[in-house]
Amino acid sequence: MAGQELRYEADGLSMNGSLCLPSGGAGKAPGVLVFPEAFGLGAHALHVAERIAGELGYAALACDLWGERRQITNLPEVMPMLQALLGDIPAMQARVTAPLKALAAQDGVDASRIAAIGFCFGGTCSFELAAGGAALKAAIGFHSGLKAPSLAAGGANHIKGKVLAMIGQDDPAIPPDTRTEFIRALSEAGVDWQMTLYGGVVHSFTNPEADAVGMPAVLRYDARADRRSWAQMKELLEEVFDLPR
Amino acid sequence: MAGQELRYEADGLSMNGSLCLPSGGAGKAPGVLVFPEAFGLGAHALHVAERIAGELGYAALACDLWGERRQITNLPEVMPMLQALLGDIPAMQARVTAPLKALAAQDGVDASRIAAIGFCFGGTCSFELAAGGAALKAAIGFHSGLKAPSLAAGGANHIKGKVLAMIGQDDPAIPPDTRTEFIRALSEAGVDWQMTLYGGVVHSFTNPEADAVGMPAVLRYDARADRRSWAQMKELLEEVFDLPR
Repeated sequence: MAGQELRYEADGLSMNGSLCLPSGGAGKAPGVLVFPEAFGLGAHALHVAERIAGELGYAALACDLWGERRQITNLPEVMPMLQALLGDIPAMQARVTAPLKALAAQDGVDASRIAAIGFCFGGTCSFELAAGGAALKAAIGFHSGLKAPSLAAGGANHIKGKVLAMIGQDDPAIPPDTRTEFIRALSEAGVDWQMTLYGGVVHSFTNPEADAVGMPAVLRYDARADRRSWAQMKELLEEVFDLPR
Repeated sequence: MAGQELRYEADGLSMNGSLCLPSGGAGKAPGVLVFPEAFGLGAHALHVAERIAGELGYAALACDLWGERRQITNLPEVMPMLQALLGDIPAMQARVTAPLKALAAQDGVDASRIAAIGFCFGGTCSFELAAGGAALKAAIGFHSGLKAPSLAAGGANHIKGKVLAMIGQDDPAIPPDTRTEFIRALSEAGVDWQMTLYGGVVHSFTNPEADAVGMPAVLRYDARADRRSWAQMKELLEEVFDLPR
């Protein structure tokens, strides 16, 4: 089930997302936004969106991050771009709300049942969308950045759905004090949140391509954490979409 | 599917456990030890064992804690009994290894595929069993004590299976520094562990009877955390018992 191009504008960029619709079934399906890792929309997030449609039966939109599906595999190049976004709430909000609007507008999508998931910086995007007050049923992050700029600005009080963060205990990009701050903000706002930690696991544990980078102490695929985090996401989506279990 | 009495001796006490076997199916089923909360073997753990047999298809032994299914609902009475046990590794080991032996000896049980779960002090029992070097596939704790005495004595190095602890973020009985110490010990030993935290949740979140105690800031049933933790346990048991998923 390959996705079809779904174009939308966001923050002045021409975005080219990939929409995957579940096969069969009349009526409207719940929708899931899939925000990719910082490197941009590539094989990993495209595959996740296909699985969400094919295995779980939800409509999934894999979101473009840098416009025209540009991919930036060079870490020194992408870092300042991330930093700029993380310091600019209107720009972040534009990047994350535009695909939500695009997905919600689809005929086959139940706009009242949409969740967002994301990986690495894509997780930050998912939490940013929630903290901006979007009508999300859930915001889920895998080896997820936790410093969504709207969260730091009190946005936890605007979160409408449930939050799940799944983190490798040894992930140097998401150290314990960052987790503690995230937990504090969500707890004070009374958000229904969960956080799962995986022992011996670092960043990018869901992405088999991570190993090619050759930095196993920082980025490393982990088949067990990949499978376990998928199962926990699946469970929460069933819960918030109110499906029989 | 009510359980049948299974008697065994442990630490000089005459224990009266409850064995629940899955219906139908020739061959041997994986087995699960169910250690109750500190108050002793009662309705909650008996019900869990029934569900494990009835819904998941594993043989389950709900373990007696204080002999002859004695229940101690009085916290001031039970606390010194717990403290005495937590300071006595041979006594703890006797209490937890005897039911493992009794379950493994059952005709319908595959002794090579046994896991332990537990609630509150029962979670401590589950981790104590693992840290004593027992051949467990997994040790799982719900609102679980983390200070298993054998862990403090270097027992993390003897753990053979996988570890999962599920904790309410606001549980005053299992504060963050206790979690950090548990994580440190397991990580240093290279154990495959997971820990899930639930926001806004305190102790005894799996036990509907907890609300009758009238201490909601300390003990409180939480239907969402109950269901989510059950799902995560189910997933790990399928993983370690090598079942098709």
